[in-house]
Amino acid sequence: MNVLPPALARLIDSLNRLPGIGRKSATRLALHILRRSPSEARELARDLATLHEQISLCSNCFVFSESDPCGICADRSRDARLICVVEEPADLLAIEKTSSYRGHYHILHGVLSPMDGVGPEEIKIGALLERVRKLEGGEVLIATSSTVPGEATAAYLISRLKRLPVKVTRLACGIPMGMDIKYADELTLARAIEARKETA
Amino acid sequence: MNVLPPALARLIDSLNRLPGIGRKSATRLALHILRRSPSEARELARDLATLHEQISLCSNCFVFSESDPCGICADRSRDARLICVVEEPADLLAIEKTSSYRGHYHILHGVLSPMDGVGPEEIKIGALLERVRKLEGGEVLIATSSTVPGEATAAYLISRLKRLPVKVTRLACGIPMGMDIKYADELTLARAIEARKETA
Repeated sequence: MNVLPPALARLIDSLNRLPGIGRKSATRLALHILRRSPSEARELARDLATLHEQISLCSNCFVFSESDPCGICADRSRDARLICVVEEPADLLAIEKTSSYRGHYHILHGVLSPMDGVGPEEIKIGALLERVRKLEGGEVLIATSSTVPGEATAAYLISRLKRLPVKVTRLACGIPMGMDIKYADELTLARAIEARKETA
Repeated sequence: MNVLPPALARLIDSLNRLPGIGRKSATRLALHILRRSPSEARELARDLATLHEQISLCSNCFVFSESDPCGICADRSRDARLICVVEEPADLLAIEKTSSYRGHYHILHGVLSPMDGVGPEEIKIGALLERVRKLEGGEVLIATSSTVPGEATAAYLISRLKRLPVKVTRLACGIPMGMDIKYADELTLARAIEARKETA
């Protein structure tokens, strides 16, 4: 079974290490890259090689950025007195896509998970409290996931933030848009009932 | 929505060009690579950059290889008088995994598809006929896919090969191992009935 050329086998191994890419996908991708032009492969190689050199964390909100402060923190048209706390950069991208948020962000780079040895020191909670202390009178919108660790992290953040002079808010929970009520899970439905709103 | 650092956006674009990797997966992969160490990204970059330099096609069977002839063609323990014709390198890998084939291969690098402008000249059929002419008395096992273009290619190959003094065989068709008869599609089941075998 040693029919793969070593250079191809190495690339398959490297691709296989990426999340969600199994051995079969890695092989398919590597063969695809081999079939395409060398210049395409070199372009991807260059993008990968220079990635870490060009990107670091914004020292204010901890998003990946080529500048410090990042574009969002430097944008004077955004509301600096509103901080949205998310678990990771992908969450920020999802929120930005909605075009309905014009405040700043704070990336925790993880969630509290005592079982995995992740306590408040391991994620960017200290830096958040530091930022919020300077805020005085603003708003912190907690947008962690509605998973068990996300909720636990939110609860911890609320306990720490309530001593500070800011408003603390959370994303609304309820029925997702376009969802048929009969397919909603019980927890979501219970939350939606609890949080029901009077019609205008 | 212009919140992605350019270096990250470029990598996402490059990854997005790979087959089966949509915009969301590309973003997830790029963020994962960014979170991991720079050395991992550089390793993947190196594997990509050197891929085409180190690998070319075996001039005999047209498999990707670092040597010419490839390891399989050079392996004297394999039966050179048996040639298995496959559509692409991934098919060869799948057959090698079975450990039940000890002959040589011939990679067509495509299938006949007149609608897409792929005729016999566009894939390695001429080179196959050349090889088979020198074989005299061997066997050509046609292992194209049982798809419409795969079958059409097989039919064309059979028409060309039957004039030459070789035995032409095809992979057996039937019920896949482990499949429940009631879930087999009609065509497969019909083929399996036609090709039924007498028990020993």
